[in-house]
Amino acid sequence: MTGFFLTFEGVDGAGKSTQARRLAARLRRAGHEVVLTREPGGAPGAEEIRRLLLTGDPARWSPVTETLLFFAARRDHLERTILPALARGATVISDRFTDSTRAYQAAARPDAAGAARALIDLLQERTIGLDPRLTLIIDMDPAAAHARGVARTTDEARFERLGAGFQTRLRQTFHEIAAAEPERCKLIDAAGDEDAVASRVWAVVEKALR
Amino acid sequence: MTGFFLTFEGVDGAGKSTQARRLAARLRRAGHEVVLTREPGGAPGAEEIRRLLLTGDPARWSPVTETLLFFAARRDHLERTILPALARGATVISDRFTDSTRAYQAAARPDAAGAARALIDLLQERTIGLDPRLTLIIDMDPAAAHARGVARTTDEARFERLGAGFQTRLRQTFHEIAAAEPERCKLIDAAGDEDAVASRVWAVVEKALR
Repeated sequence: MTGFFLTFEGVDGAGKSTQARRLAARLRRAGHEVVLTREPGGAPGAEEIRRLLLTGDPARWSPVTETLLFFAARRDHLERTILPALARGATVISDRFTDSTRAYQAAARPDAAGAARALIDLLQERTIGLDPRLTLIIDMDPAAAHARGVARTTDEARFERLGAGFQTRLRQTFHEIAAAEPERCKLIDAAGDEDAVASRVWAVVEKALR
Repeated sequence: MTGFFLTFEGVDGAGKSTQARRLAARLRRAGHEVVLTREPGGAPGAEEIRRLLLTGDPARWSPVTETLLFFAARRDHLERTILPALARGATVISDRFTDSTRAYQAAARPDAAGAARALIDLLQERTIGLDPRLTLIIDMDPAAAHARGVARTTDEARFERLGAGFQTRLRQTFHEIAAAEPERCKLIDAAGDEDAVASRVWAVVEKALR
């Protein structure tokens, strides 16, 4: 495993995907082979599971069923895309990974967050076994992020329809994840324009790659 | 939980589904409410996961991804179909359940059968938590069963295409499961005509229901 595995996380609409693309472009200009990927999805089978997860009624899957589907997609993504790229020395940038499952399940069911987290951590250990070397959590005020999120027109808006209280709990969980693993997880302030955020991202990545 | 949960298992083509239907009809004639269901599937979401599992290239999913998809479907089946039926006192008959995942994964990858079984047992305990009260394993010579299996015209033939050596290992694993849990699992000889097999099934079920 010679490559570098990096993930972007954050609430919907915070600008994660834009920053992931910008970082990929910057690393490529610096001569790195970069594989830019996303979850759920990132491999042909995983993209089919993505369709089951992100379309239809928000109550379509129970929390446990949903968690199992996310890990089925993640395992496929890991085997078909992430591990082969890391093995040949590439930098892999994933727009979301296991921290998103942790944060979304905790935010969706605050009353059962402990049991959900225990199952997620167990599946991460037993079916994935790979943690990112660096996780950038793009951190934004939930009201602002939510306003951007719901303005999108997409049929994958299942999670985004869950509302502002949900997004507030989501941000809180990302803060808890960052506090629990300060070496791996860095909060990036999403204030300002894209260039300003990209500079903050680059400062952290440059240091980690050294 | 006042109902009775019963499963049918066995190699492809042994006549499981026919016997499940016959048993359901007989129990209904005797006045039982019976829910006859099957795996993978048995609920609307689980049926969509079934489509991902049973169509396409046999190498489409890795063993671990496949196991996670089976348990996602099983959890949906459990929550939406099995538990509500048992709660109202019905007899639930499922054509396949967790033993099929145990047997198929062990038969598909004999070199990694121990690791596969450990993951399956963990998922069964942590995401399902319900074992059948009675499991009827319709036991048939693999060559005869395979000849019947491959004669079917279905686009769900992914598992059946895996060959005769596979079916032999499958039967062996079902025998091991039966030996390990003799109270729950009963081998039913599939020799003879449908009526003969149905009589053997009924003898076991009648005793268990008493």
